[in-house]
Amino acid sequence: MNIGIVGLGLIGGSLGLKLQKLNHTIFGISNNESNKEKAIKRNLANTVSCDLNTLKDCSLIILALPIQELIKPSKLLIKSIPENAIVTDVGSIKKPIIDIWENIHPLFVGSHPMAGNEHQGVESGFINLFDKAKWVITPTKRTNSKALEIIKHLIKSLNCDLVETSPETHDKAVAEVSHLPIFLSSSLIHTVNVNKESQILEISKKLASSGFADTSRVGAGNPQLGLDLAKHNRTHILKALKEFKNYIDEVENFIEGEDWAKLYQRLEDSKKFRLDFL
Amino acid sequence: MNIGIVGLGLIGGSLGLKLQKLNHTIFGISNNESNKEKAIKRNLANTVSCDLNTLKDCSLIILALPIQELIKPSKLLIKSIPENAIVTDVGSIKKPIIDIWENIHPLFVGSHPMAGNEHQGVESGFINLFDKAKWVITPTKRTNSKALEIIKHLIKSLNCDLVETSPETHDKAVAEVSHLPIFLSSSLIHTVNVNKESQILEISKKLASSGFADTSRVGAGNPQLGLDLAKHNRTHILKALKEFKNYIDEVENFIEGEDWAKLYQRLEDSKKFRLDFL
Repeated sequence: MNIGIVGLGLIGGSLGLKLQKLNHTIFGISNNESNKEKAIKRNLANTVSCDLNTLKDCSLIILALPIQELIKPSKLLIKSIPENAIVTDVGSIKKPIIDIWENIHPLFVGSHPMAGNEHQGVESGFINLFDKAKWVITPTKRTNSKALEIIKHLIKSLNCDLVETSPETHDKAVAEVSHLPIFLSSSLIHTVNVNKESQILEISKKLASSGFADTSRVGAGNPQLGLDLAKHNRTHILKALKEFKNYIDEVENFIEGEDWAKLYQRLEDSKKFRLDFL
Repeated sequence: MNIGIVGLGLIGGSLGLKLQKLNHTIFGISNNESNKEKAIKRNLANTVSCDLNTLKDCSLIILALPIQELIKPSKLLIKSIPENAIVTDVGSIKKPIIDIWENIHPLFVGSHPMAGNEHQGVESGFINLFDKAKWVITPTKRTNSKALEIIKHLIKSLNCDLVETSPETHDKAVAEVSHLPIFLSSSLIHTVNVNKESQILEISKKLASSGFADTSRVGAGNPQLGLDLAKHNRTHILKALKEFKNYIDEVENFIEGEDWAKLYQRLEDSKKFRLDFL
């Protein structure tokens, strides 16, 4: 199949490498000449261009763009999508993107591969990124059934674990398991670093071990991504933050009031819940 | 040297294995007959006994006991420590333990190896646990200088990175980098699990990836340890919780008030702080 990939960063670049291996012909779109040269050197696509007209012969197009560019797509991008092409995106929120794109293109199907790492840009894609990853597909009443089947088939061919749900359920779930951790992890980093006596800070740095490293990891990710998630999944994130704050308040009350039985119960429940969860 | 190790769990058992390798003669104390048999089978010490009198010929004793037993030591334990033996502990808080033990035994030196994992008990010790780990030593004005030198020498012989600070500074630093993460991580686990529509919970479980796994890890540790830390490092943990809550409130306000410039700055700072920190 002729597949267009708009954006050759971590997700787009990895897809380009993998889909060529699966014998598709890949037309990659790069955002500037310098990245185009790098993408060609890394063989991220069969053809790499900055010209969106390159998409004209594609029957399937993957929009591997930052959330902001998916929510406010350029007129040039919209114009360059062939009428019969099936289109999907890879954005980490779904409803706001789908609301826009279903009105732009009847053959749009929203999706979200749960794969990534701390790297970004044209140098970061690699062929195994999607191995056994979960890939969420979020059809709506308006989704074309043939387009849906083709996207499902594509996802399965990538050796991914397909999860199907509604855009709303997706956005609520990721607000809790994926977006909330960013903001609490960032707040932990601030607590440890800001307005500290230099002596305490020096010892904190020496004593921070795997516990701190793990709990603070997602708070140090790409700030633009964190911002885009907050902007476009705002309501669900605010709800998750409120619930989280209630639990933190309770823990504080248990410790303040020396209610050790309740604190023990809380910690025992967390242990049990996480075992059930992961 | 004849070294006594009281408690053959993860820390005590690992020490027993490693110190035998360094040609010391280890007298291990187990809390019951069944664990004693397991410890003998695993060669955790040259001699394993449930009888504290076994410590009578030891010139150095390591108290590898839970915090609670260090804070309220049994009379039998106190009586069994030879007058000339140097004694250290491995507790994860320092001031409350040192305040007790400096009044029990003049040759006591508080210390804390920053090593561990999610396992516990007589089956969990292993010889490499301390390789390149940080080991904190927290002398006070009352610490005997010869005892201090011998404990320092022992820690270095274990291939550990020695960190020296006061008990108070240790307890403040670990409240932030080590204890606070437990309570926020536990609250995250509760947020995601409790009072959820079954449909959301099901999708959350499917979509939880490495970000959630890392941020929730320390919230699912040994509940008794979390409780003991809260009990005995209460003031410092409450202070850390208050500071953390202020940062969470600010993040909530940025998102609520759509103050995207400040939210971006916050996330950019976290990224920078963590790079400096770890």
